[in-house]
Amino acid sequence: MKRKSFREMECPIAQTLEVVGEWWTPLILREVLIRDRTKFDEIQNALGIAPTVLANRLSTLVSHGLLERRRYTHSPERFEYVSTASARDFRPVLDELARWGEKWTPSPGQGSPN
Amino acid sequence: MKRKSFREMECPIAQTLEVVGEWWTPLILREVLIRDRTKFDEIQNALGIAPTVLANRLSTLVSHGLLERRRYTHSPERFEYVSTASARDFRPVLDELARWGEKWTPSPGQGSPN
Repeated sequence: MKRKSFREMECPIAQTLEVVGEWWTPLILREVLIRDRTKFDEIQNALGIAPTVLANRLSTLVSHGLLERRRYTHSPERFEYVSTASARDFRPVLDELARWGEKWTPSPGQGSPN
Repeated sequence: MKRKSFREMECPIAQTLEVVGEWWTPLILREVLIRDRTKFDEIQNALGIAPTVLANRLSTLVSHGLLERRRYTHSPERFEYVSTASARDFRPVLDELARWGEKWTPSPGQGSPN
């Protein structure tokens, strides 16, 4: 089922979800912003995410200006994804998601996001 | 494509997303918590969401204890969804999502969530 876009909604929550609301995307930002994993292969291994899904989510984040795609080796060609100011300003959202999860979800949600 | 569950991940962000991370769910919580719309039909009309999708998302929120389902008329049978303490404690997440959207997304994301 194709999901409906929130782009036309006049609500800043909907606008934010249009950028970061897809399944996996907040965890990708967690890897980059909190765990300092920026390389495609690192993120993919850490999350156990399908490479095609990861490539799709990263492309969305790059197109909205949260990440910058940089080649770090030529042969083989490999890319990393560096956070911009707008991604770093998403950290408080991740912190609130972690706070809520620690308080209201059962274990195994008792670890730290750090 | 069936999405992967985050239930086994030992991270409170992942645990939170398992509950509220599906497409539409944060906007449903916005309706209940911020706009005070609790009736199924009100929420459905406000969001323009397919009834089957709304029923699915509400069922997930009820099963995780964020909402309580209450019948408010018998004939026809109609239900409303009342927030619990755990849902009300999600408000800071919505506020952070709104703050980020106001700052980093273009219009029409310039309205207020209230």
